[in-house]
Amino acid sequence: MNVNGTHYRTLWMEGLSIKLIDQNKLPFQFEIITSPDHISSCEIIRDMRVRGAGAIGVMAGFAMAQAFVEAERQSVAGFTTAARQRIEATRPTARNLFYATEKVYEAGRKAGTNGALTMALALAEEDRLCCQAIGEYGAGLIHDGCQLETHCNAGWLAFTDYGSAMAPVYQAAAQGKKVFVYVDETRPRSQGARLTAWELANENIPHTILPDNAGAWMMAQGKVDLMIVGADRIAANGDTANKIGTLEKAIAAKYYGVPFYVAAPLATFDRSCSTGLDIPIEARNMEEVLYQTGPDRQGTHHEILVASPGSSAFNPAFDVTPAELISGFITEKGIITPAAENIRKLLEP
Amino acid sequence: MNVNGTHYRTLWMEGLSIKLIDQNKLPFQFEIITSPDHISSCEIIRDMRVRGAGAIGVMAGFAMAQAFVEAERQSVAGFTTAARQRIEATRPTARNLFYATEKVYEAGRKAGTNGALTMALALAEEDRLCCQAIGEYGAGLIHDGCQLETHCNAGWLAFTDYGSAMAPVYQAAAQGKKVFVYVDETRPRSQGARLTAWELANENIPHTILPDNAGAWMMAQGKVDLMIVGADRIAANGDTANKIGTLEKAIAAKYYGVPFYVAAPLATFDRSCSTGLDIPIEARNMEEVLYQTGPDRQGTHHEILVASPGSSAFNPAFDVTPAELISGFITEKGIITPAAENIRKLLEP
Repeated sequence: MNVNGTHYRTLWMEGLSIKLIDQNKLPFQFEIITSPDHISSCEIIRDMRVRGAGAIGVMAGFAMAQAFVEAERQSVAGFTTAARQRIEATRPTARNLFYATEKVYEAGRKAGTNGALTMALALAEEDRLCCQAIGEYGAGLIHDGCQLETHCNAGWLAFTDYGSAMAPVYQAAAQGKKVFVYVDETRPRSQGARLTAWELANENIPHTILPDNAGAWMMAQGKVDLMIVGADRIAANGDTANKIGTLEKAIAAKYYGVPFYVAAPLATFDRSCSTGLDIPIEARNMEEVLYQTGPDRQGTHHEILVASPGSSAFNPAFDVTPAELISGFITEKGIITPAAENIRKLLEP
Repeated sequence: MNVNGTHYRTLWMEGLSIKLIDQNKLPFQFEIITSPDHISSCEIIRDMRVRGAGAIGVMAGFAMAQAFVEAERQSVAGFTTAARQRIEATRPTARNLFYATEKVYEAGRKAGTNGALTMALALAEEDRLCCQAIGEYGAGLIHDGCQLETHCNAGWLAFTDYGSAMAPVYQAAAQGKKVFVYVDETRPRSQGARLTAWELANENIPHTILPDNAGAWMMAQGKVDLMIVGADRIAANGDTANKIGTLEKAIAAKYYGVPFYVAAPLATFDRSCSTGLDIPIEARNMEEVLYQTGPDRQGTHHEILVASPGSSAFNPAFDVTPAELISGFITEKGIITPAAENIRKLLEP
């Protein structure tokens, strides 16, 4: 994987600009876009041109560093505090966003612009190293010939590299194991069908797309040996917020005895949330459910209505899976079962 | 509901032709199409221009009757037997299709073309009366202010009138109860978002569309009081084949203690299947998952790719929900719990 200095696969800094893959254009177009300042970076996060727990965190850290640079130039009182609020208001659920914003803000306050930039770059490298370690620990769960299911995209597109849920798959494949991945479509934004399928094809991992409705049925037929998903925020008791639909799969996995793992760096754990009830869940626009975009067979893109005209829809972006449904957390410090005590120990400095 | 002689809402016979709503054009266009002969009727069933357990059964009965008329004109040996095979080969899972085809075939063999026609029309009327009775029994499960979830379309579009799962909703509303319906989108063909949402708007029942991924999360928040779905085939032990995704909802409903009912006429029960393992599950084309069609904001229809180019997908049309997850069956003879003994008694002549 082409890590080279601060040039990561998904997003990186070039001077004071952020460069990133525009994930709204994938899988139909691969385009690197540039964010010159923190306000533009906030829009990019909100529009989900960058998405995925780790990538959101790294982007937020970069944006916070950009704000320190901008503050130095403009010397407006309270600039970085306002910038921090703006960054934190982009998306409410992903813990990594708040983790990175706070770290870079504190570094900037203590050591100025250079401190902020250094911290932002350190967090990007931390993200990469954590995912690499998650891959190594998680690969132990994957046997040769394993058929694995995943939900949404928690691959390298969702981090600076490797990914969380997909890192063990890449590591297992690198060890010569045969792995097959069932990719949940992940409506309404179809990050599975669009991003994970693209990513796995790119990495030569055999896979097929499942309608979200088909997950339990595949488990019922014994076709799923293991399920691994990512996480957007993990409460102190192990309750886990992740992409909407994760809960449904976790319940089905429990019913059929399929091991269900959550892969996430420690940056995703949030001690300030004692249970899942404390995790804010983002509600997104109903148009994401009612409309779909993509190219026709001639390659021309269209936005089409996929529901009865005049319908309304609910669009919660995440759900919370109770800890009791989770077999374990795959972290950069190893695999633990989701007991509050284990999580407490894991997060000790 | 505008039943008038043999003119039902969804499909009916006019002379020797079948008239029906083209359900592939809904919700964007309301068009009545004509099927002049049994071969055309088979194509219409296979292409899902008519769909839904009851409507498929009635259509199959009509098609079988058409074949007897055609046989009389052409006097080809084995014509009706070949026609029966052709009709039964259109869709493998829906029990009602085989039920109706057999009844009309036997009536034709005993009493000629007129016998076949009379039986086909009697089955359409039986379908209507069964759904009406299901509505009356099922309405007792719905309290004033009830928030109900349903999957796919098991409303009047799926039968000659009333529907199975939606009949209790219409009856409860007619009794003056307030009912709110969460409509599962039901990928990949989106019969919930396209057909059920259209149907409920038509009947002035308040509702909203849920991405299939959001069902369990709504249950977790206590927003779903009751779930009612239809069925395509029910085995002797109560295992129930229905639209893919039903299983996942039934597991979630059990986990959260939400009552989960299956509404179906006795024609959907199949004593020859001892358990769900005996029910054949239709696998449909992967293009149904990978492409979506609908109008853009100017009303021009497009077929667009909604997955990474070159991806494959699985597309099982149905799944089987184990009897243990079902609170009860709502039938034209009343509501029973899904014990094999109860089903045996229910099916006694």
